[in-house]
Amino acid sequence: MITTPPRGMRDFLPDEVRRRQYVIGVIADVYQRYGFEPLETPAVENIETLLGKYGEEGDRLIFKILKRGEGEASGAADLALRYDLTVPLARVVAEYRAKLPKFFKRYQVQPVWRADRPQKGRFREFYQCDVDAIGSSSPLVDAELCLAACEVLRKLRFTDFELHVNHREVLTGLLTGCGVPEERHGNALVALDKFDKVGLSGVLQELEDRGFEKRVSNALTGWQGVRWPKEWREWMVSQLPLLGDRGRAGAQNLHDIIDLLSKTEAESYVRVNPSLARGLSYYTGAIFEIRVSDLVGSLAGGGRYDNLIGMFLGEQIPACGISLGLERILVVMGQRGMFPEELTATAADVMLTIWNGAQMADTLALAAELRSAGLRVDVYPEADKLGKQFKYASSRGVPFVLVVGDDEAARGEVAVKNLATGEQTSVPRNGVVRFITSQSNIPS
Amino acid sequence: MITTPPRGMRDFLPDEVRRRQYVIGVIADVYQRYGFEPLETPAVENIETLLGKYGEEGDRLIFKILKRGEGEASGAADLALRYDLTVPLARVVAEYRAKLPKFFKRYQVQPVWRADRPQKGRFREFYQCDVDAIGSSSPLVDAELCLAACEVLRKLRFTDFELHVNHREVLTGLLTGCGVPEERHGNALVALDKFDKVGLSGVLQELEDRGFEKRVSNALTGWQGVRWPKEWREWMVSQLPLLGDRGRAGAQNLHDIIDLLSKTEAESYVRVNPSLARGLSYYTGAIFEIRVSDLVGSLAGGGRYDNLIGMFLGEQIPACGISLGLERILVVMGQRGMFPEELTATAADVMLTIWNGAQMADTLALAAELRSAGLRVDVYPEADKLGKQFKYASSRGVPFVLVVGDDEAARGEVAVKNLATGEQTSVPRNGVVRFITSQSNIPS
Repeated sequence: MITTPPRGMRDFLPDEVRRRQYVIGVIADVYQRYGFEPLETPAVENIETLLGKYGEEGDRLIFKILKRGEGEASGAADLALRYDLTVPLARVVAEYRAKLPKFFKRYQVQPVWRADRPQKGRFREFYQCDVDAIGSSSPLVDAELCLAACEVLRKLRFTDFELHVNHREVLTGLLTGCGVPEERHGNALVALDKFDKVGLSGVLQELEDRGFEKRVSNALTGWQGVRWPKEWREWMVSQLPLLGDRGRAGAQNLHDIIDLLSKTEAESYVRVNPSLARGLSYYTGAIFEIRVSDLVGSLAGGGRYDNLIGMFLGEQIPACGISLGLERILVVMGQRGMFPEELTATAADVMLTIWNGAQMADTLALAAELRSAGLRVDVYPEADKLGKQFKYASSRGVPFVLVVGDDEAARGEVAVKNLATGEQTSVPRNGVVRFITSQSNIPS
Repeated sequence: MITTPPRGMRDFLPDEVRRRQYVIGVIADVYQRYGFEPLETPAVENIETLLGKYGEEGDRLIFKILKRGEGEASGAADLALRYDLTVPLARVVAEYRAKLPKFFKRYQVQPVWRADRPQKGRFREFYQCDVDAIGSSSPLVDAELCLAACEVLRKLRFTDFELHVNHREVLTGLLTGCGVPEERHGNALVALDKFDKVGLSGVLQELEDRGFEKRVSNALTGWQGVRWPKEWREWMVSQLPLLGDRGRAGAQNLHDIIDLLSKTEAESYVRVNPSLARGLSYYTGAIFEIRVSDLVGSLAGGGRYDNLIGMFLGEQIPACGISLGLERILVVMGQRGMFPEELTATAADVMLTIWNGAQMADTLALAAELRSAGLRVDVYPEADKLGKQFKYASSRGVPFVLVVGDDEAARGEVAVKNLATGEQTSVPRNGVVRFITSQSNIPS
């Protein structure tokens, strides 16, 4: 019988779960301090909720669920697995509008599923960690989202990341200024977005191949040296005639966001990235990516999408969000050895040995006392040779082993063995909890 | 456009997520102190992994996932949504046997999916909280699992639950002793298991309808008054001739487990329940259910299943587990008002107001200080009338609102309004963090 998980999906054994839970815990803690609240939606959505939201390629990658009962034979699907956390959020905002606050700030950490071809670092089931603020188009919202995402990374001990920003309306303004009709904008942005992969010459070639004139290439790539906000402002001023009203409003908006960020702890991370376009079609304003040099792709990405919720609600509601790439964060942290030492530690602080069946009840009572003191206690499940039990504890990395032999029991004592030092100490039965908690780093 | 979640599935808004996370946190904390480690498996399994494991009815309730690409048109399914956490555990133990400890103790809290007809309290997506110990048939394992589950409920402030125990081999022994062939045992147990719904007369009728002789009814229901371990032992002794070797070994095993439990904090909860049979066919030893009087059905259930892992591995490995019914626990806790008060509280400890765009950066800086002190801080996203901002904070239940008006800024002060008392205080800018943390119950 097959015992592997499905292709592109993973089992997480305990050490891996602890690492994932640690990162998710930091994310949740930071987002809560920024006033974001947790939301959870079902893994499964009605298929109409998802189809047509992610482009043609996206539709193909959706896992579809067969109808049940009589419908099963038809081969038709009525449900599908969640493809991202943004469309479910838009659905939730539309469904519960009256119950939700005017400014709904939510974070959501749940798996999504995509039938992509599995590759190194690309899975068919993976977690997204999204944070979104609904209901305001204020630049403070964009700035706070960037700040919060940067703080998550700092709390995880990243120091070398960059927050790349750009603005969809600046790109729109430039393209419109060059006379490119709106329906061809996406086409140009897809080419621009490949800058990191194919470089300037590659982008120029691609734009030419896609039939864009030289002046379009110049407008989109003429500011490629720009990196710092100060340079960007100068370049923007030089482009004012080309930008038009929408482009100028976009530039002003990005200026305001950068200005707010420049007075915060995120200041040193901000870079303007002229080739940042972000693949998803629903962005309407500022766009963001957080990058580190030793990773192709980004640790986080997001932006403003003021029209998506309107697709579900009829009424337009402004929104902005950032998604942290949990799987990528875990990969980089693993490569760099960034996990706290205690995470790689054992499942138990103490193991209790078992001599014989008659002594099991006493052992459980001692285990209960140690557990009440907050210690993680393993009990060897069956009577066995003591050497074998010590060896087992050692293989599991348990630091202390307790033995209540007949002699010790008669003297009202417990033998405590420190497996790291090999030292064995006799401790009065009623002093065991204090002895262990004082020797280990566990808060009692 | 439809904005509801799929039939029988639920969106969890922030208050509900906080309640769920609180319960899951207690479960994880207790299980870790018992030396159990976290495991996570994919939501999706290969369809062969699941089919044939849950009986005919179970197979019908499995959500099947359509093949992708060219296979899609065939209407065939190759994947399916997880139906429980036990079969994936058995698969994991078989797949990673060499990497896992000899005694693998794991807990797992993840959703499962069943295409059941939705009813009050029955959903198509719901969480299971499983704890299992693999690798030993010692009664200490069964006792520790019961102890841990009882401790979870006590930590959640349940006081009135009962731990019902019985033993499959005792039932097997009785049936065999009455001359019932093994292939008809399941048939009899299904009838017996209905005791809580249909009462003694109902079970007797059902056994008769299913063609069982009077002596079978007598053997299975003749001990229905039995409730306390002492009564049970007396009844067992009276049945020794009928029980046969297997039945006697089962009775001895259950006696040992009860004996261990009787010397622990779980002692007062233990009841022997002669009609407890548990639906699933894979149980081979002791079986458990935890019940409260105001709930039909159980808060938790489980038992020993020494043959299931062998279906995946070839080699038999003993195993025992208990599953806590998260959804039912939440329902009862909600009905009884058992959630801690702080859970129903607001998403933020403080809200900062915004007068005008020029002041946004200063406000973000103050927010950063408060957040560093561990406070959860919301910033009103845009300039607006102060009255409207106060009203918003009040509607969200935020206890404190800070105002940095131009006058306050000039004096180096911040106005702090306590929304509960209406009291407004001017506090020096550099003393705000201390003032708020001293007024609220947040650890600084």
